[in-house]
Amino acid sequence: MKLLKPRLATGKSFAEAIRLRKTTREMTDEKIDPQTLSNLLFAACGVNRRRGPFGQLGITAASASNSQEIRVYVALEEGTFLFEPKRHALERITKKDLRPLALTPHQPRVSAPPLHLVYVVDLDKLEHTQGFDEPGLHDPEVQKAYYFVDTGLVAGNVYLFAAAHDLACWFHNCDKKKLAKKLGLGKAQRVLFAQSVGHPAGARR
Amino acid sequence: MKLLKPRLATGKSFAEAIRLRKTTREMTDEKIDPQTLSNLLFAACGVNRRRGPFGQLGITAASASNSQEIRVYVALEEGTFLFEPKRHALERITKKDLRPLALTPHQPRVSAPPLHLVYVVDLDKLEHTQGFDEPGLHDPEVQKAYYFVDTGLVAGNVYLFAAAHDLACWFHNCDKKKLAKKLGLGKAQRVLFAQSVGHPAGARR
Repeated sequence: MKLLKPRLATGKSFAEAIRLRKTTREMTDEKIDPQTLSNLLFAACGVNRRRGPFGQLGITAASASNSQEIRVYVALEEGTFLFEPKRHALERITKKDLRPLALTPHQPRVSAPPLHLVYVVDLDKLEHTQGFDEPGLHDPEVQKAYYFVDTGLVAGNVYLFAAAHDLACWFHNCDKKKLAKKLGLGKAQRVLFAQSVGHPAGARR
Repeated sequence: MKLLKPRLATGKSFAEAIRLRKTTREMTDEKIDPQTLSNLLFAACGVNRRRGPFGQLGITAASASNSQEIRVYVALEEGTFLFEPKRHALERITKKDLRPLALTPHQPRVSAPPLHLVYVVDLDKLEHTQGFDEPGLHDPEVQKAYYFVDTGLVAGNVYLFAAAHDLACWFHNCDKKKLAKKLGLGKAQRVLFAQSVGHPAGARR
């Protein structure tokens, strides 16, 4: 599924986005329109330059040795997709609505967000980095430090995108086991966290 | 040491910052001026609202249960300081220039950045959170996931601040043991990573 071309011309200044950055758990079920979805995914970890570190493509979120090991899955009502930054496209993984699994049973179901991003690490991308192959990339504890930081770098872009576009955003735990199964993840892939994006409940549109 | 009041009025749009986000390792030794330093620290994890999650102050970077467990130390030529978001101030920790310890012996010394941020977790802030006390906050593996993600959320703000202000920025490893000693860290505090900010080498000013 091709995404619309990202068009980030609108939106607030960086300064305003920083001032407005916050977590908002309460959202309406109103969908995110296709242009906003495309812009959001570009901001998260889209390709923003042909020449990034170590001669590879560069993306909007830094990663350890430019390994780009964080995969972003997009859970919508109409199915669940893998975001492919290089093609700026969505690959359908399942027609199932996996959004209920993007919250754990212990989390407050304060709303039914139209969109969850699910963060997955692909350890193969660290083990066989396209970037600079430093020893830490093969140490499980160091890998952990890298891929969680790198998740935060993507999620931070999403938080600021939401702030810049008056959207609600919430980073949270998810049902990792069930999601890994439903997404058909490989042995080197692990579900880490999820992040909801939607329209804030109670806001005037 | 009081910081100047943050004034983020200038700078690019969020969209431009996202398009320009990149890692730049080559920097000049030119200092960061006091107003820019103040703005940078506000963007990193400054207080941007009186009422954040769980009735606590809100900061520009999300954190697990709003625990705000990531401390940011600022290593400058004239000494090393702890950033205190609530007062928007710098507390001097040492008059020593600890910048050489903010890179490991294995990292390329491509430049002498005027400023390193050193990220430290305070585990007590998770164990005794000011926010929602969920069981994971007491599990060392879950803590790890949280504090590394939360580091990425702060560092992501810094990367975008740099992009919005034509500064160079690089997130990297550091000499954790020596820094922990020199910073006089407590038992519950760990050095995690560092991030350099400066003026890009070769850029016209």
